[in-house]
Amino acid sequence: MSLVHLILGGARSGKSRHALSICGRMRGPHKFIATAQAYDDEMTERIRQHREERANFWHTIEAPIELARAITSVNDGTVLVDCCTLWLSNVMLAELDIGREADALVESIARAKANVVLVSNEVGSGIVPENRLGRDFRDEQGRLNQRLAEISDTVELVVAGLPLRLKG
Amino acid sequence: MSLVHLILGGARSGKSRHALSICGRMRGPHKFIATAQAYDDEMTERIRQHREERANFWHTIEAPIELARAITSVNDGTVLVDCCTLWLSNVMLAELDIGREADALVESIARAKANVVLVSNEVGSGIVPENRLGRDFRDEQGRLNQRLAEISDTVELVVAGLPLRLKG
Amino acid sequence: MSLVHLILGGARSGKSRHALSICGRMRGPHKFIATAQAYDDEMTERIRQHREERANFWHTIEAPIELARAITSVNDGTVLVDCCTLWLSNVMLAELDIGREADALVESIARAKANVVLVSNEVGSGIVPENRLGRDFRDEQGRLNQRLAEISDTVELVVAGLPLRLKG
Repeated sequence: MSLVHLILGGARSGKSRHALSICGRMRGPHKFIATAQAYDDEMTERIRQHREERANFWHTIEAPIELARAITSVNDGTVLVDCCTLWLSNVMLAELDIGREADALVESIARAKANVVLVSNEVGSGIVPENRLGRDFRDEQGRLNQRLAEISDTVELVVAGLPLRLKG
Repeated sequence: MSLVHLILGGARSGKSRHALSICGRMRGPHKFIATAQAYDDEMTERIRQHREERANFWHTIEAPIELARAITSVNDGTVLVDCCTLWLSNVMLAELDIGREADALVESIARAKANVVLVSNEVGSGIVPENRLGRDFRDEQGRLNQRLAEISDTVELVVAGLPLRLKG
Repeated sequence: MSLVHLILGGARSGKSRHALSICGRMRGPHKFIATAQAYDDEMTERIRQHREERANFWHTIEAPIELARAITSVNDGTVLVDCCTLWLSNVMLAELDIGREADALVESIARAKANVVLVSNEVGSGIVPENRLGRDFRDEQGRLNQRLAEISDTVELVVAGLPLRLKG
């Protein structure tokens, strides 16, 4: 039986580090699905930092957009997806059909043979963004997080590195 | 005896859906007070979506600004207010005295004969807004949420559709 | 033995008021370290409001930047630091080395002879800020909150005036 564990939190809340620690307690082999895409120097630097933070010996799959397919390709052990927010951002920038992509993602997770640990951002607790894209992104991320929470066995919110159990 | 139940959460956190489910477990008749005002196409669309999400058979009272009066007008059963954030935004745009309007709202809730379920946004957990209006709104919303929490029997924070009990 | 108590929350979440109440239950004498710096009328007004909110008889130390030194200077009782977010903002605006300043702050707290109650903002739960300074600030604040949480005996998140225990 495989488990789904969703880890939510704000920027630099310690989500990724907590996710690594959760994965470390689950069965191997461990795989890492990275969704980050380097489109400028700042992003390249952030990706580099994230790579350093995780154990180097993990097998990494790059899946900026084809996340559902990447999850389905893992047949055993535990897979860590970091993160669903960058994936959503990539899908929106590529002007794909968000509803269809989200359906495929949710289905791939629900049917996964591996344990799946998901990292996703909480982005809806500031004031209303000034531009339409920001508002749309906020809405889509909120909807996606609700769907992911619904199919997860365990959901935690990380604040300042400390996990708070929301489900399971 | 009537109860006051406050439901806080970020944008698209599942607050409204949770509020509907809470109301459904309280005594009828059920009334819905909508505070949204359509001033552009995007807002019209959002209002339409919200209407679809709630049960059509509920009696709806439109109260973009006269919220205290609308709450006082309900004599029994349970009333759902969705949401205090749009109301605050309408009051600020109409350049009314926020302190006085908030006093009237808090008093109408404290004295309500019906159960009152309130939906309100958490807006203070992003970085400092760049413009003065954004900062003022954030401050006023924070103050209002504290006052509403103080007079509520139960307070919950909704994250990704999952309620977290803060009081009661 | 001295205790470290960290109080996190969004803007106008009731953090400061809760911090005052926590301090009031700890041993005296009570000292207040203020980090706010008035660089415009809006800020002057905010500082004035905060001064009114706290009891006037507290001894106040102004430390917009030299926070570590101020904490070290307190030899007994309880010291309230309000807040770490304004301090971080002052350090960034002064273009000091954030890593080194944060190291000194964390060390001063860990070695404090007085009980230390810290107030700090949650700023990472909105959408990605549009400007680089906003993104950097958000990252630094997130990192700092994680470090402070790590050396704290108790950590609470305040939402609408209601504390939620995260640690201790």
